[in-house]
Amino acid sequence: MLARCFRRVLVRFSTVRSRRCHRGLCSAAPAEGSEPVRTLLQLCVDRHYIFPGQTNAELCRGGFGCVYGPLGVELRRNLLEQWWYSVTGSRARVFGINTLSSSPERAGVGPRIIESKHLQRLWDEGDQSREQLLQELQRCWSVRTNLLQGALEQFVPSLQLVSRKLPFGLAETGSCFRPPDGSGCSAEVTQTSLVWFCSPRTSSQWLDHWARQRLKWWRKFALMPSEFSSSEVPQEELEGAESRVVKISYNFPWGLESLETLSCRGDTELLHTHKGVHSKLQFRDGRKSVPHVVSVSGNVDRGLMAFLSNSLQQLKREDGRKKLQQRRVLKLHPTLAPIKVALDISKGATMELRQVCEGLLQEFLEAKISTWPGFLETIPSSVEQLSAKYDEMGVLFMVVIGENTLESGLLQVRSRDTTIRETVHISEIRSFLSRYVSAASSC
Amino acid sequence: MLARCFRRVLVRFSTVRSRRCHRGLCSAAPAEGSEPVRTLLQLCVDRHYIFPGQTNAELCRGGFGCVYGPLGVELRRNLLEQWWYSVTGSRARVFGINTLSSSPERAGVGPRIIESKHLQRLWDEGDQSREQLLQELQRCWSVRTNLLQGALEQFVPSLQLVSRKLPFGLAETGSCFRPPDGSGCSAEVTQTSLVWFCSPRTSSQWLDHWARQRLKWWRKFALMPSEFSSSEVPQEELEGAESRVVKISYNFPWGLESLETLSCRGDTELLHTHKGVHSKLQFRDGRKSVPHVVSVSGNVDRGLMAFLSNSLQQLKREDGRKKLQQRRVLKLHPTLAPIKVALDISKGATMELRQVCEGLLQEFLEAKISTWPGFLETIPSSVEQLSAKYDEMGVLFMVVIGENTLESGLLQVRSRDTTIRETVHISEIRSFLSRYVSAASSC
Repeated sequence: MLARCFRRVLVRFSTVRSRRCHRGLCSAAPAEGSEPVRTLLQLCVDRHYIFPGQTNAELCRGGFGCVYGPLGVELRRNLLEQWWYSVTGSRARVFGINTLSSSPERAGVGPRIIESKHLQRLWDEGDQSREQLLQELQRCWSVRTNLLQGALEQFVPSLQLVSRKLPFGLAETGSCFRPPDGSGCSAEVTQTSLVWFCSPRTSSQWLDHWARQRLKWWRKFALMPSEFSSSEVPQEELEGAESRVVKISYNFPWGLESLETLSCRGDTELLHTHKGVHSKLQFRDGRKSVPHVVSVSGNVDRGLMAFLSNSLQQLKREDGRKKLQQRRVLKLHPTLAPIKVALDISKGATMELRQVCEGLLQEFLEAKISTWPGFLETIPSSVEQLSAKYDEMGVLFMVVIGENTLESGLLQVRSRDTTIRETVHISEIRSFLSRYVSAASSC
Repeated sequence: MLARCFRRVLVRFSTVRSRRCHRGLCSAAPAEGSEPVRTLLQLCVDRHYIFPGQTNAELCRGGFGCVYGPLGVELRRNLLEQWWYSVTGSRARVFGINTLSSSPERAGVGPRIIESKHLQRLWDEGDQSREQLLQELQRCWSVRTNLLQGALEQFVPSLQLVSRKLPFGLAETGSCFRPPDGSGCSAEVTQTSLVWFCSPRTSSQWLDHWARQRLKWWRKFALMPSEFSSSEVPQEELEGAESRVVKISYNFPWGLESLETLSCRGDTELLHTHKGVHSKLQFRDGRKSVPHVVSVSGNVDRGLMAFLSNSLQQLKREDGRKKLQQRRVLKLHPTLAPIKVALDISKGATMELRQVCEGLLQEFLEAKISTWPGFLETIPSSVEQLSAKYDEMGVLFMVVIGENTLESGLLQVRSRDTTIRETVHISEIRSFLSRYVSAASSC
C-alpha cells in the first residue's frame, strides 16, 4: 500500500517524458535509458551515496529527497555550501534568512500537520459537525511547499537592512513538501531559493543576469558542461503571476529535467502577502513604486543526481589477455567530491599497519581533509581492486600503506584523474595532500 | 486564535520552571529574569539575529525554530558546521547520514501531513465511516519527531561500512516536529543526533565518554563556560527503554534548560525497528549479541540561544561628564561569530568612498571573510556609534574608511575584543584581516 502511495506521487510530480517500463529499479524510466540508469543507481547504492531499497532509489531518481548514505550527505553538504557561497558571497545585497518549514500563520489550503490521535479524539467527542472539524484542521500548522512565501513575508523587516534601497535579495535553503496528490500523499525536496526584489523596469534584465549566473555555476562543476542548459518557457505555458520564466535543465539518461526555475513574478504576490498595503512596500526611487520580484528556485536533490550522472565516466579497455575491462570513474569536481582521500592497506593488514593508518587518519582529519577509513574493512583487496572501488566512489587520492612502509616510511599515492602513482614519504604525505587537494579544489 | 494555538504549544513543551508574567515579549518568563531576557531578545531583533514579531521572539526564547535574520542564519550555520566537524571528524567510525523528515513507511500514531482539501473530499464522498477516514489518514506521510528512528532504520545497511564491527555511529542534523499538543498544534526544532552502536557491556562507558566530549564542546565556544553543565537524570525519572540519561544544560536568565540529552537505550528499540530479527543485527564479537544504542540528541535552536545569552556582556562606565554609559558587546566565539568584519564609512559618504568600499568588499568576499556591508546604510554615524552597533552584532573587526583614505590610503581597524584601533594601509588590509581572523578562529 505504501509503495502504491509513493508511486502515485512519483507519477504525478516527476517530469519524466516517457514512461515505459525498465527492468529492476525504476518503474517509470524509459527503456532506452535503462542500462545507464540502472548502472548509475546501483553505483550510488554500492558506493554509499544513497541507502539501498527500491523506494529510496525511486525517490532519488525522481528528484525527491531520499535517504542518503555518508557520501551522499557530504556531496549534498558541498553542493549546498557552494550554492550558498555563490549567492550570498557574490553580492553585498543578498542576505541569508531562515524561515519556518511549518507555520501557524499561513491560512488557506495546503498540506497541514495533524496528529491522527487528535483527529480521533475530536471525532469521539461526537457532536462535531464536518465544518467544525475542518475548521479545527485549519488551525493546525501548515507545511511549506516552496521557500518563496517565507521570503515575501520577510520583505518588510528586511527593508531596513538596505535603507529601503533596491535591489536586494533574500537567500534560503531548506526542506519543502510537495503538495500531496489525490491520495493525500506527500514528498519532500530540499530547495534553494533566491528572492530578488528590484525596480519594475529592471526585473527582466535581472532575470537574464541571474539565469546567466546560475547556468555558469552549474557548468562550473560539470564534467560535461553542455548537458546543462537553459531555456525560456513559452508565454502560453506561464502560470499565475509569472511574466517570464527561464528553466535550467539537465539532460538525464531518462530525459531533460528542470533543476532550477527563474521567474519574473511582478508585484502581485508581494502585495497579496502584505494585504495590499502599498505604503509599507515602497522603496526610495522617488516614484513610490512597489518592487517586482524575481525568484530563483532550485532542487538540490535533483541537482545532486545531475552531478552524479554527469560525472560518471565508463572507460572500456582491453587488458593483457585481451579481456574487455570496464572501468567506472565518478569524476566529480574536486570541490564537490565528498571524499578527498582514502586510506587503505594493500595486503597483509597487521596490527602495526592499522596503527599507522589510525595515526595518519587523525593527521588528515586535523587538516580538515575529508578521509575515508578504508583500512577498517577486513576483506583483503589488491591495489587494483582498491583503485576500482575508490574511482567509483569519486575519491580524489588513494593512499596505500604496505608492509615495507614500516621499514622505509614510504607509501603510495594514486590520483583518480591522472591515475599516476607516486611514492611519498610518510612525513610529507599530509602537506603533499593538503597542497594537491586545495589546488584541485580551487581550479 | 493562532497566537493562542502557539501559546498552548509553548506552555506544554517549554521547560520553564516559573511562569509568572513579565512585561512585553514573553508571557511565560519569570519576573526576576525579565530585564535580561527583554534586553537579549530586543538585541537579537535589532541586530538581525531574528526577525521581529512577538510570536517569533517567543519561539526563539522557547528553544524552537524561529525566523532567523541574516546574522542568526550564519550563526546557526557555524554552529551546525562545528557540531558536524566535531562529531564526524573526530572519529573514523562516525558516518553522516540523511534520512527523510517525512516518510511513507512509518506506521502507527504520530503527526502526519495531510491536505485539508483531501480530507474534505473524502468527507464529501459521504459514505465513509470514521474508521475508513482514520485508515486513510494512516496512509499519509508521517513527520518525524526525532532523528533516532531514522538512524535505527539504517543500522543494517550501515553494518557493511564497518565490516560488522562495533562500535560505530550515525550522525545527522535536521528538522524535527514536536508532537502536536491537545489542540493539534505542532512546532519545529532543528536537532543534531549521534546514534552510537556499541557492545552491551561498554554502553555505559560510552555514555560517559560522549557526555564528557559534548560538554567540552559546548564549553569550548562559551564566554562563561561554567553556565554549561551536565547532570545525570535520576533513575525514577527515566522513560521507556532508557537505562541511564545525562543532560547537558544551560543556565538561561529564565532557568536551567536542556541543550543535549545522552541516553543508554539498550537494544529494545533497535530490535523493534527490525521486527526482532536478531540475526540481521548481530555483530562480530563471537557472542552473537545485538548492539546497544547510546543516543546523543541536541537542540540547535536552543543551543544558538544559549551562546547568544552566554556571550552578551554588559559593561557600565562613566564618561567624561559623569554620565553612566552602557556598552553591550556580543562576545561570540570567533569561530561562531556570524560576521567577522564590518566595512563602513565614518562621515561624509561620497561616491568615491562607496566605490572604495565596494572594491574592498569584493576582496574580502573572495578571501571568504564574512563581511557586513555597513556602508550601504545611508544614515551618517560617528565612529563611536558604529563601534557600539558592531559590538552588539558581535562583529570581530570594524574597518572604517574616512575622507583622508582617498589621499593617504590609510584606514582604521578596530577589534571588538581589545577595543584597540589600528591604522592600516589599504593595500595590506586583506592579509591583515585574514591573518587575524584565522588566528582568532583557531584559538
